[in-house]
Amino acid sequence: MSKISVAVLGATGMIGQRFIQMLEDHPWFEIEGLYASERSQGKRLGDVLKVRDHEYLDETVDRRIETMDIKKIAANCRIAFSGIPSDLAGPTETELANAGVAVFTNAGSHRMDPHVPIVIPEVNPDQMSAVRDQPTYGESGGYIVTNANCSSTGIAAPLHAVNQAYGLKQVFVSTYQALSGAGYPGVPSLDAVGNVVPFISHEEEKMETELAKMLGTYSDGDFHYAPFKVIANCARVPVVDGHLESLVLDIEQQPTLEELEKCLVSFRGEPQELNLPSAPVQPIIVRHEENRPQPVFDAMAGRPARARGMAVTVGRLRQGNGYYKAFAMSHNTLRGGAGGSVLNAELAKAKGVL
Amino acid sequence: MSKISVAVLGATGMIGQRFIQMLEDHPWFEIEGLYASERSQGKRLGDVLKVRDHEYLDETVDRRIETMDIKKIAANCRIAFSGIPSDLAGPTETELANAGVAVFTNAGSHRMDPHVPIVIPEVNPDQMSAVRDQPTYGESGGYIVTNANCSSTGIAAPLHAVNQAYGLKQVFVSTYQALSGAGYPGVPSLDAVGNVVPFISHEEEKMETELAKMLGTYSDGDFHYAPFKVIANCARVPVVDGHLESLVLDIEQQPTLEELEKCLVSFRGEPQELNLPSAPVQPIIVRHEENRPQPVFDAMAGRPARARGMAVTVGRLRQGNGYYKAFAMSHNTLRGGAGGSVLNAELAKAKGVL
Amino acid sequence: MSKISVAVLGATGMIGQRFIQMLEDHPWFEIEGLYASERSQGKRLGDVLKVRDHEYLDETVDRRIETMDIKKIAANCRIAFSGIPSDLAGPTETELANAGVAVFTNAGSHRMDPHVPIVIPEVNPDQMSAVRDQPTYGESGGYIVTNANCSSTGIAAPLHAVNQAYGLKQVFVSTYQALSGAGYPGVPSLDAVGNVVPFISHEEEKMETELAKMLGTYSDGDFHYAPFKVIANCARVPVVDGHLESLVLDIEQQPTLEELEKCLVSFRGEPQELNLPSAPVQPIIVRHEENRPQPVFDAMAGRPARARGMAVTVGRLRQGNGYYKAFAMSHNTLRGGAGGSVLNAELAKAKGVL
Amino acid sequence: MSKISVAVLGATGMIGQRFIQMLEDHPWFEIEGLYASERSQGKRLGDVLKVRDHEYLDETVDRRIETMDIKKIAANCRIAFSGIPSDLAGPTETELANAGVAVFTNAGSHRMDPHVPIVIPEVNPDQMSAVRDQPTYGESGGYIVTNANCSSTGIAAPLHAVNQAYGLKQVFVSTYQALSGAGYPGVPSLDAVGNVVPFISHEEEKMETELAKMLGTYSDGDFHYAPFKVIANCARVPVVDGHLESLVLDIEQQPTLEELEKCLVSFRGEPQELNLPSAPVQPIIVRHEENRPQPVFDAMAGRPARARGMAVTVGRLRQGNGYYKAFAMSHNTLRGGAGGSVLNAELAKAKGVL
Repeated sequence: MSKISVAVLGATGMIGQRFIQMLEDHPWFEIEGLYASERSQGKRLGDVLKVRDHEYLDETVDRRIETMDIKKIAANCRIAFSGIPSDLAGPTETELANAGVAVFTNAGSHRMDPHVPIVIPEVNPDQMSAVRDQPTYGESGGYIVTNANCSSTGIAAPLHAVNQAYGLKQVFVSTYQALSGAGYPGVPSLDAVGNVVPFISHEEEKMETELAKMLGTYSDGDFHYAPFKVIANCARVPVVDGHLESLVLDIEQQPTLEELEKCLVSFRGEPQELNLPSAPVQPIIVRHEENRPQPVFDAMAGRPARARGMAVTVGRLRQGNGYYKAFAMSHNTLRGGAGGSVLNAELAKAKGVL
Repeated sequence: MSKISVAVLGATGMIGQRFIQMLEDHPWFEIEGLYASERSQGKRLGDVLKVRDHEYLDETVDRRIETMDIKKIAANCRIAFSGIPSDLAGPTETELANAGVAVFTNAGSHRMDPHVPIVIPEVNPDQMSAVRDQPTYGESGGYIVTNANCSSTGIAAPLHAVNQAYGLKQVFVSTYQALSGAGYPGVPSLDAVGNVVPFISHEEEKMETELAKMLGTYSDGDFHYAPFKVIANCARVPVVDGHLESLVLDIEQQPTLEELEKCLVSFRGEPQELNLPSAPVQPIIVRHEENRPQPVFDAMAGRPARARGMAVTVGRLRQGNGYYKAFAMSHNTLRGGAGGSVLNAELAKAKGVL
Repeated sequence: MSKISVAVLGATGMIGQRFIQMLEDHPWFEIEGLYASERSQGKRLGDVLKVRDHEYLDETVDRRIETMDIKKIAANCRIAFSGIPSDLAGPTETELANAGVAVFTNAGSHRMDPHVPIVIPEVNPDQMSAVRDQPTYGESGGYIVTNANCSSTGIAAPLHAVNQAYGLKQVFVSTYQALSGAGYPGVPSLDAVGNVVPFISHEEEKMETELAKMLGTYSDGDFHYAPFKVIANCARVPVVDGHLESLVLDIEQQPTLEELEKCLVSFRGEPQELNLPSAPVQPIIVRHEENRPQPVFDAMAGRPARARGMAVTVGRLRQGNGYYKAFAMSHNTLRGGAGGSVLNAELAKAKGVL
Repeated sequence: MSKISVAVLGATGMIGQRFIQMLEDHPWFEIEGLYASERSQGKRLGDVLKVRDHEYLDETVDRRIETMDIKKIAANCRIAFSGIPSDLAGPTETELANAGVAVFTNAGSHRMDPHVPIVIPEVNPDQMSAVRDQPTYGESGGYIVTNANCSSTGIAAPLHAVNQAYGLKQVFVSTYQALSGAGYPGVPSLDAVGNVVPFISHEEEKMETELAKMLGTYSDGDFHYAPFKVIANCARVPVVDGHLESLVLDIEQQPTLEELEKCLVSFRGEPQELNLPSAPVQPIIVRHEENRPQPVFDAMAGRPARARGMAVTVGRLRQGNGYYKAFAMSHNTLRGGAGGSVLNAELAKAKGVL
C-alpha cells in the first residue's frame, strides 16, 4: 500500500514540529512538504527547532520550509495537518477544504462551525461522520476536522469514561498549563520564571463549551451537548510541556474509589479496538504514588513508542464531602495538539472518509 | 512605654527570619534573643540568611543565634514567636506556656487542642478569648495561640467577608503554592525546576477543617464549626513566595459581581479598627487586570510599609453556571506565617490578654 | 532650590521603569513627563508595570504615558533620561541634543560617537568633560552622555580599582546575565526555563571595547584607550535581575589577596567624595562566604536606600597559576542601566555642565 | 557469548539510575542486582525514580533494590558500577577490588590513588593499563577505574584533540553546571529557582588537576601530568541536565578557525576505532548556530541510540586578542557520569583486562 501524502502547515511552530515528529516513519502517511510563512522560506528545519526533546532523522532535519501554496498542496496532498495561528487558520483551512483537502487542524477557528466536529477518537469517534455533512465533502472531498483545545483534551477521556459509567453532573477544574501551549515566542520569560499567570485568553470558555460538545452526540445534522456543567479556572505555570489539571467531580451514581479507578484503567476506545498506529494501548493510566502525576515524569506517558505522550495520567484519586477529587496530566502539544490530529486522521482513514 | 521582650524560636528558618523582619523597629515588641537548634549556635544571623528580600538593620544581621533554653526565655520574655518544626513545636510550646510565656506559633501541633484558637485577627478576633480557658492562663499567665496554615490564611478573609454578607455553602479551591512554604532546604530543586508537584502533606485536610473552625465561633468553652464545605486540591509550583489559589464559590444569596466586589473591597476587621501596627489599611485588595493577581507582583501587597505582604489580593472575579470564580493571592510566610503571628500578638495586647 | 525637570523616554520598558523608580522623590530632579511609543499612549503607568519589585508612590502609578514629542520635551525639560531601543535612540537623542536637552541614555547608539563619553562616575568622571566638545553643547546647551552596557558596568569599578593600584594586563570574563537585560518581552520563556543561552548579540564586542575606552582617558578632543585586553564569553541564564560574572585577572604587580581585597573595599570615587544622591557609600562590597555573590541576595546591594542596587559585590577572591580569580555581581537595570544614567546626571550637575 | 554480570551500586541515586539506563539491553553486560543503602531496601525501582527522561523496560522498573552485600556481589559479579557517595565509596570500593571485582566508579575517592587511572576512553585509553599495577589485580583480579568529574569530562576530548594537534598552553574555563550534578535531594529549590550559585565544593581544584592527569601519560608505574595550566571558575545554574562551559584557549601553534574546527570534528579515539557499544560515532560535534550549544537541545547529543548523551558539543568558535574562544556542552550524568564508566568497562573488556 502506498502511503498518503500529507502537508504540514505551520511547520516551524511548536505544534508544527510535533506534527513532524509524529509523522516520521508513519506507516500510513508520508510528509510531502513543510509549509510556513514567508519569513521561514527556504530555512532548514534543523535551524528553526523549537521543541526540546526532538530526535529527528537526518533527512527530516535537512528538509526545507516552503511558503504556503494552496494549489500546490491541493494538487499533491490528500491531507493537511494544520498548526497555523487561528487568525490565519480560518480562511486558509476553508480554502484547502474547498480544494479537496482533508484538513486536520489544531486551530480553534472552525471548532464551532456547523458540521465541523471536535474529535477525540477515544471519546466521540462517531462525530467524525459529521464531515459527510460538510458541503465540500460532496463537492471536492475536502473537509475539516478539529482538535479540542489542549486543556479540554487532557481530561476528556477520563470524564467520558466516568460519564458513561456513572453519570457526570458537574466538573470543577483548575489548570496548571505548560508554556509550550502558548507557542513560540509565546510567554515572555520575565512573566514565567518564578511566577504563575492566572489567565489564558478564552481558555476557560473553551473548556466550558468544548467538553460538553464532545461528550454529546451528533445526529440529524446537529450537535447535541452533554448536560453536565464544567466550571474552569485556568493558569499558566513555568513548565515546558504537560498540562496538569486538578479535578473535583460531582458524580450521579456514587461509585467506590475502587470502582472509579477500575472504570478509568479498563477504559478502551475505538482507537484501541481499531489498533490505530498512534493510539496508546492504555489511554488512561492511573498512578498510586502520593505525588503523581507530575509534568516531568508523566507528560510523555503512552506505549508503544509511536504513542509516547498520547496517554492521559490520573492520580491522587480521593473522595470526600460528596465529591471525587483527582489530578490529571497530559501532553499538551502531543495528545492535546499534533498527536490528537494525527490520531484523528488515522480514525478518518479507518472509518473510510479518507 | 517600654517594649515587650520577645523571643524568636527557629530563627534560622524561613518563618523565623520573617519574624525577625516583622519585628525590626516594632513599636510594641523588642527582640530579646534569637533561638534555634544547637547546630546554629553562635552563628551570625547574617551568615544563615535564607529569605531573598531581606534588608535587615546592621545590628540585626550581627545578632548571634542561641540554643533554645526554656528557662532563660521564660525568665526574660513575655512572648515567644515560634517558627520551629511541628515535631519539636508540640512539647516545646507546651513547656513555654507552662512557664508563663504567651506563645504565638506558626506550627500546626496545637491547632486542634481544646481552647487553643487558630486566629486571623480580621476573621475571628473573638476566638482569642479562648486562651483564658487554657489551664496555664490562670496558673502562669502562659498560653498558646496558633496561625492557620498558609493556604487557609490566604483565603480566610475573603471567604469570611462573603460568608458574613451572603452566606457560603461550598468552596472549591485549588492551590498554586510557593516553595518557601516547605521551609529550607525543603523541596529539592530537581523536583521544582520546570515542574509542579500535586501533593503537599496534610495540606488539603488542614484547609478542609481549619477554615470551618476559624469561620465558626467559640462559646461555652468550645469551638463551633461553620457549616460550609471546603473541597481542596493542593499543589506546589516553582514560585519563591506567594500562594495563588483558584476559587469557585457556591453562595447562598446570589450577589451581583459588583456587590461581591464591594463586599470584598470595603471589608475591614478589628485590626483595622484597632489600628494594629502590622495591620494593612485595606486587608482585601481587588484587581481588575485580566491577568492578576500574580506572585511576583502581588505577594507583597499591603500598606503601610510595616504591613507589606499582609494584604490579600483577589482578581478575575467571574460568574457563571450558578457559581462565582476568582483567584486569590497572599504571601505565605508573611501573612500566612510570621506576620500572622505578629498580628495575633498585637491583637492579644489590644484585647488585654498580654 | 527648585528641581530640574526631566523627561523619561521609553517609560514602559524595563529600563524606563527603573528610571521612574530612581527618580521618585529625587532631591534634584523632578519627572515632567513619561514618554513612550504611540502604542502606550494614555495608559496608566500602573497598568504597564514590568518590574517585579516595584513600590511606587500612588501618584506615580497613576501617571499617564505620553507619546514622544521632541518639541514639548525640549520646551519643558533640561534633561531626558532615555531607555528607548537602540534603533530609535540614534536619531531621537540627536534631535533632543540639537534642541538643547542634556540626554543621559542607556542606549548604545551613540557610545562610539566622537566626544560622546561612556561614563561611570566612580571610574572616569573626567571623561564627562568631553560633552563640552560636542557641537550642540556650544549651540543649544544640549549633549549626550551614555551608560556602558550592563555587563561592562558590573565589573568596571573593580577593574579600575585594581588597574590603578597594581596594573591590569588581561581580563578573562564569563557572564551569567539576567533576563531583564533583554528587555520586555525579551527572551521567550521556552528558551529560558531550565536553560542557558550562550549568546547575547554584540555583548562580547561591547565588553572588549567599552571597558578599555572607559578605563582610558580623554584629552585633546580624543579618547585614549587603556592598554589591557578583555576576553569575554557572554551567556544568558534564567535569573530575573542581576548579572554575575566570573573573572580571571592577569595583574602586573602581584598583590597578596589581602592587598587586593583592601584595594577593592577601600575604593572610593568622585560620587562618594561629592556625596551624590544616588551614590552608594561603599561602591565595591567584598563578601567572604564561600558561595556569594548570588543574584537573589546581592543584586540589590548598596546603601543608603536611594542607592540600593548601585553597589557592586565581589566574592570568592582566589589566587593560583599566576592569576587572580573572583566572581562579581551587579544589578543590570539599576547600576547597569537607569541608575547609572541618573548618577551620570548627578555628576554632570556637580561638575557644572547642567 | 554469555553476558558479564554486573552490579549497580547506589542504584537509587541520579548516577545509579543512569547506570541502569545505560545497561538496559546492553550487548555485553547484564545487571545482576541493584544495590543501595538500607533505607531503600526492598523498594521497587519504579517507586524511587529521580531521572526525568527515564523510559525503562517494565521488568527493569519492577526490580527491587537490595542492600549492599560485598560477598554476594563478589560471588556473582565481575563488575560493579558505582554511583555511591564519596565518603562511602572509599572503603566499599577497596573491599570490592580486594574481593576480585572490577570497579568502575563515578566517585572521586580513589582518583588520586597510585595506579588508579581516571579514564576517558577517547582521551587516555592507554592509562587503563595502570590497573595491572594495582596490587589487587594480581591477587584477586579486582581493580578500580575512575571517571573524571563531570565538568572535566565535558571538555577533556576537545582539549585533548587541540593539544595533540596544536599544543595547549593555558585553558580558562567557567562552568554553568546543572543541578543533577549535585545528586538528589542536592540543591534546595530556594537556592536554585531564579538564581546562580558561584560555588561547587572542590570542583575547581578537581578541574585544575584531573585534566592535566588525564591528558598526561602513565609510564614506569607513574602518572606524568600534561604541562598546560587550567584556570577554572565553577557555578551552578538552574538547569536539570547538561554542563555548559565557556572556554578561552591559549594555543601554542596558532591554527585558523577552520583548522581548529576540522581538528575537533574529525577527532576519533579508540572507542570509535574499537566500535565500543556506548561510543558515539562522532565524539565531538561542532555547531554553527550563533546561540548553541544549549542544555535543552544539546545535552543528549550522540548517535547511535545507545550513545545518546555521550557526545560533546562545541559551538561559537571565535578568535581574538591572541586567544580562541568557544562554548562546550556535555551531559553531566551520562557522558560525565554513568555513561563514562560504562564506556570504561567496555574499553577494559576490549583491552583484555576483564
